[in-house]
Amino acid sequence: MLASIRILAKPSAARHANRAIVYPSFGNPSEVLTAVTYPDLSSPPPKSLNVRYILSPINPADINVIENKYHSKPSPVKTLAEGTVHAFSEPHFVGGNEGLAEVIEVGKGVEGYKVGDRVVLTKQQSGTWASARTLHEDDVLKVPEEFSDVNAATITVNPPTAYNMLHSFVNLRPGDLVIQNGANSAVGQAVIQIASRRGLRTLNFVRNRNDIISLKESLHSLGADHVYTYDDLKNKETVQQIKSTITHKGASLMLNCVSGDPTKDMTRFLAEGATLVSYGAMSKQPLSLPTSLFIFRDLVCRGFWQTKWYADHSREEREDLMQTLAELKVSSCADDVDKTTDVLSNDAQQLQEPEHEILTLKGAASDQEVAQQVREIISKMQGGRYGKKALLKFE
Amino acid sequence: MLASIRILAKPSAARHANRAIVYPSFGNPSEVLTAVTYPDLSSPPPKSLNVRYILSPINPADINVIENKYHSKPSPVKTLAEGTVHAFSEPHFVGGNEGLAEVIEVGKGVEGYKVGDRVVLTKQQSGTWASARTLHEDDVLKVPEEFSDVNAATITVNPPTAYNMLHSFVNLRPGDLVIQNGANSAVGQAVIQIASRRGLRTLNFVRNRNDIISLKESLHSLGADHVYTYDDLKNKETVQQIKSTITHKGASLMLNCVSGDPTKDMTRFLAEGATLVSYGAMSKQPLSLPTSLFIFRDLVCRGFWQTKWYADHSREEREDLMQTLAELKVSSCADDVDKTTDVLSNDAQQLQEPEHEILTLKGAASDQEVAQQVREIISKMQGGRYGKKALLKFE
Repeated sequence: MLASIRILAKPSAARHANRAIVYPSFGNPSEVLTAVTYPDLSSPPPKSLNVRYILSPINPADINVIENKYHSKPSPVKTLAEGTVHAFSEPHFVGGNEGLAEVIEVGKGVEGYKVGDRVVLTKQQSGTWASARTLHEDDVLKVPEEFSDVNAATITVNPPTAYNMLHSFVNLRPGDLVIQNGANSAVGQAVIQIASRRGLRTLNFVRNRNDIISLKESLHSLGADHVYTYDDLKNKETVQQIKSTITHKGASLMLNCVSGDPTKDMTRFLAEGATLVSYGAMSKQPLSLPTSLFIFRDLVCRGFWQTKWYADHSREEREDLMQTLAELKVSSCADDVDKTTDVLSNDAQQLQEPEHEILTLKGAASDQEVAQQVREIISKMQGGRYGKKALLKFE
Repeated sequence: MLASIRILAKPSAARHANRAIVYPSFGNPSEVLTAVTYPDLSSPPPKSLNVRYILSPINPADINVIENKYHSKPSPVKTLAEGTVHAFSEPHFVGGNEGLAEVIEVGKGVEGYKVGDRVVLTKQQSGTWASARTLHEDDVLKVPEEFSDVNAATITVNPPTAYNMLHSFVNLRPGDLVIQNGANSAVGQAVIQIASRRGLRTLNFVRNRNDIISLKESLHSLGADHVYTYDDLKNKETVQQIKSTITHKGASLMLNCVSGDPTKDMTRFLAEGATLVSYGAMSKQPLSLPTSLFIFRDLVCRGFWQTKWYADHSREEREDLMQTLAELKVSSCADDVDKTTDVLSNDAQQLQEPEHEILTLKGAASDQEVAQQVREIISKMQGGRYGKKALLKFE
């Protein structure tokens, strides 16, 4: 009964038809993506929930999925509203892997969720670019109250990737150095903030660019100790300068989302027995390293994939991770950590929201117009001209 | 007293002057290597031993050391016979890392060694290309009786590398598959024999060559289950054939001494979560792998260096390893393992001696002639035209 009262109390959720961004087959997003309108969901089956999406990010990996260039594949669906007249002429994929939703109706036997709860998805490729979906209770996770909508919508992939890479591979102690590339990525920014909070030092690398000075300032403000560009790795004097800033033994952990030559060059700052964890390969180059690093310097190369982490961990463990991230107070300025814990507790704030733009898909717009809006953003992201996180908001 | 009696009983050891293969500076062996004659050793200082070398291998890494292209560096010496008139005009390096020697005199306070004991070296780059040396007791290891002289002279590097790689990284069970390249190397042959004895299956890769059929037969006779060439990796049908011979899940351990493209191609036969252990890079190419293998297939890349193993383990642990290798009965034919353990225990034999040639450096030859002999063998090894293990025997 609570469910229906809730719906009545939120007429906007019930009044509009639902919309989703879908594609019938893999290909270039600008060619295959369309928008589709579908009726309100029927009541959810047992152990399931109906949710209304609040914000649904477009992550770079989502584009790779549509292009069929990603490791995990979505499952096509015949309908977006089971038990209604809605059905596709042929099965379609629904875009999106990550998203923040609100529970709008609860099926029989569901435990631990109620109408109004904010939830995120831990099942990969569940199709979050939609107004409303019916989800199995095992595929969602309640969001701690501490999170803003934007933080919650982007909490399932990047911050846990950063957190787990900093906690699962090497036993790091305050003062230890962590090296990373792609330091301005969403994961990279979370790494800087979490590492800084733990008293770790970070040596960060980014691509050179016109606004490099402001980028460096922005990363320093998150808590980065050192920021250099890949170009700096070709300059002997700068390399010496970097070496003089790091401890004698070097870093015991390196995080890689780039691969290719710069990554190889960065290994010169590693300690013997260091671990290099890869979670991406933005250069589209292989991870190519001298074999001697493994034999004589005892290097260990591993990988991390948050999706696998979710698959390997229980609901309780997933909830614990969310709560840990929610309670992770991050100083807005790395220096505060060193000064006094009082300053820290006063100034402390949560993980910063990623720089983002909310793309409202108007309820009054046509499916064609909405599809065009999404295709344009994706086209910008493909061209590398979109530095922010794009968040879809279905009106 | 025992020492002098022993020397008297072996007049050949005392009668001849000693000789060593030395070099004053790093460079091309054919240019820097010379032979030098030196007097009999003085009595060893406390905690030290005088030894007479029985057999001293020339390993490929020894050539890299002379070229200054190897990770570990030898220490130059001012004399080969401390306390005598012998001295170099400038400090020289003595070639050789591995060798079998006989104790000819024991210094004060030495425990666990007596005249006549056969010993091998566990200290890297100690200079084994010599008739006789004075060594610290911590740098030698007694050789189990079971070993022939040839096996003992080649026991400190390759067989323990094979044994440790098969035992230290992955918990393997009978029937499990191990993949390796450079399968005809000394380590590769030891891997085949030890794996076969443990009931593991091996998928072996070698370079294509004119006598590939006889090479395959020879590896099969050691216990290899499958032998293919790197060329086969480029042939889709053969790759399918290989896939049909391995288990559904693939191999959990891969051993690499080649790197470069063939190594990358071999990873397609790996199970999820597999470990790739590198101990060499004969192609002189980097280890270059798709980053996705680490992220989505949970690949772990590591390295192994027996020299580090010795440095990290106690004398007792080193002796245990030697004894383990000595007691490792290896079936001469892999099929025997499957048939009956009775057949195995009857037919079982130790690790096969590596294919080798003993190069006797005649006592009557001049230093120039001896140096020329060694340079010629090394030149053949550099040209890849020397398929056997060369063992120096100082007459």
